[in-house]
Amino acid sequence: MTGTPPRVGILGGGQLARMLTQAGHRLGLDITVLEAFADSPAEQVGARALVGDWSDPDTRDRFAAQVDLITLENEFVDHRALAAFEALGRPVRPGPAALAIIQDKLRQKQALAAAGLPVPPFRPVSEAADLLSAGREFGWPLVLKARRLGYDGKGNATLGGAAEAADAVARLGRDDPEAIYVEAFYPFRHELSVLVVRGLDGATVAYGPVRTIQEDHICRFVIAPAALEARVAARAVAVAVGAVEAVGAIGVVGVELFLGADGEILVNELAPRPHNSGHYTLDACVTSQFENHWRAVLGWPLGDPALLSPAAMANLLGARDGPARPAGLDAALAVPGVHIHLYGKREVRRGRKMGHLNAVAPTPEEALARARRAAQAIVL
Amino acid sequence: MTGTPPRVGILGGGQLARMLTQAGHRLGLDITVLEAFADSPAEQVGARALVGDWSDPDTRDRFAAQVDLITLENEFVDHRALAAFEALGRPVRPGPAALAIIQDKLRQKQALAAAGLPVPPFRPVSEAADLLSAGREFGWPLVLKARRLGYDGKGNATLGGAAEAADAVARLGRDDPEAIYVEAFYPFRHELSVLVVRGLDGATVAYGPVRTIQEDHICRFVIAPAALEARVAARAVAVAVGAVEAVGAIGVVGVELFLGADGEILVNELAPRPHNSGHYTLDACVTSQFENHWRAVLGWPLGDPALLSPAAMANLLGARDGPARPAGLDAALAVPGVHIHLYGKREVRRGRKMGHLNAVAPTPEEALARARRAAQAIVL
Repeated sequence: MTGTPPRVGILGGGQLARMLTQAGHRLGLDITVLEAFADSPAEQVGARALVGDWSDPDTRDRFAAQVDLITLENEFVDHRALAAFEALGRPVRPGPAALAIIQDKLRQKQALAAAGLPVPPFRPVSEAADLLSAGREFGWPLVLKARRLGYDGKGNATLGGAAEAADAVARLGRDDPEAIYVEAFYPFRHELSVLVVRGLDGATVAYGPVRTIQEDHICRFVIAPAALEARVAARAVAVAVGAVEAVGAIGVVGVELFLGADGEILVNELAPRPHNSGHYTLDACVTSQFENHWRAVLGWPLGDPALLSPAAMANLLGARDGPARPAGLDAALAVPGVHIHLYGKREVRRGRKMGHLNAVAPTPEEALARARRAAQAIVL
Repeated sequence: MTGTPPRVGILGGGQLARMLTQAGHRLGLDITVLEAFADSPAEQVGARALVGDWSDPDTRDRFAAQVDLITLENEFVDHRALAAFEALGRPVRPGPAALAIIQDKLRQKQALAAAGLPVPPFRPVSEAADLLSAGREFGWPLVLKARRLGYDGKGNATLGGAAEAADAVARLGRDDPEAIYVEAFYPFRHELSVLVVRGLDGATVAYGPVRTIQEDHICRFVIAPAALEARVAARAVAVAVGAVEAVGAIGVVGVELFLGADGEILVNELAPRPHNSGHYTLDACVTSQFENHWRAVLGWPLGDPALLSPAAMANLLGARDGPARPAGLDAALAVPGVHIHLYGKREVRRGRKMGHLNAVAPTPEEALARARRAAQAIVL
């Protein structure tokens, strides 16, 4: 680079944009977020902010005038908006083609399967009869999934048997024959995540596998490293890197994996952006996922993902609705090795991600115990 | 704490305030800086900013209305301003009494000596004849120092012999009999620094000794840890903690030390705030000095200062005058383990601190080699 700070844009101003902004300012980037409301988490930490809607052409023009390169914190950006930014000469990274694949979970699964990567059995469905046929072939339970816009378990239904098929198709399928697909339910031992960083030149680095613990389909805890035999960990990384290469994404991609009873690794799904399962990297790795995302999308050399200490992350979720009033931070900070990361959201809602905390410790088990203890001390 | 984000103020909006702001936002703090100009490094990363002068009573009133607690990034705040803030019910930490001692290098040395801490021989002087007498007693060379406002070697003069005395006294003494004092020149092997964090309750933690490498009186490199025998390192920490307790400061204090040829440790001087020699903690320690400063001044539990990896820091100093145009960041980031921290200053000046970079590595020697290599790649 040659002397002018890169002007980068982020679609969205939430917590991922906030942490991207903090990492980007250290690198001297000129950062603007496009968000529907003012006082966003990213704006609070000094991102320039354009308040507006990316579906509006005038807003897009104004945003494009302020930035040379666009990335995102949320993969559900309408493909027409992405195409419009590219037409304005503003590359969008992870890349429109990769996003088009990832936004449609059926296409995503098809791309992974076509690349020879292990995924649960799946197939398109359009009506209840297709589900019954899938049930006969894959066995029950089945997981019916919306192809688009699902996250944190929203848009998924686990069906115990044929009797539940018609209702679920009506609810998730919304009379659109292309809205849903079905997967075999995979009886995983644990859920894992591997963060892959893929540079503009196709080079990749990967953070080692972590275990994610979900409750009510929302990630509650992450443990780094996951307790895995070396060959299983290596397989998880190889599969994750293969998945990111199969879709051709640039930047950080969170690759959610299933670990089977005998150490099998299957791909669950991809999130083409910094990922909740990678927040531990802020306090435990040589390079955070946020710094590495900027390095990748700017075409700069990727940073070392090595883990400096075992760590655990706990999400800090809202337990009520109303104005946010975080309390108990001092008690949480009395737990050794704990670091708190609040997102600045003014309103708390039940289950809303208000922040997270990381704990480092001599062992992953101790890190998890510390993270649990500290998280219990905080009232949001 | 009980639900309302602490409203904290920082006197100054430069790079230390910038890094304090980034750490404070993670903890949910509401941060306002008082700085003489707009677009300060701290304001750029989302600190609220009051532009004004702390010597102006109206400005002080407005600042006090926005904050509950005040800290600083520069110890040269006029004691009348500090007293005025305290009178408005806004505690200033590290504390007015500690600042009064530290701001006067002679009083600082006297306080350290009175506490039984090792310092070079020193004495007040008011005229050239006093210097000649000190020279007879301590031997030449001598170091003549301004008692107030000296930093980065400014306000110091090393005198080789009696012939230089009159000129130096005239220059630094400015006809004020209380402006200067003299110290024996200490033929140190290395300069060291220990960061001490002292909480509101008097508890302390200390970061292990690092070696600082000065060029032209400005810190160029820091190596963590310093290569010291365990008993010397322990002595350095004990002396540094004793020094901070002797002056009663709250928060992070950078304690600059001399290491003698036979492992003696002497105190050079104290900086009662996050310190340039502690920037490596951002990427190499469990808790950064900036997070620990907030924990201390807020009365929260102090964080673990342990080093997670050997590291080195290189200051990125301006090499010309004009608009800042940082280049070569990508080349610097190609060096393994390197992280760049730019301060956002719009104008570069020869010798101005524009940023720093940290390198982690398996050994301190390799970390220093990496930091040097990366710093050479950056043109400011």
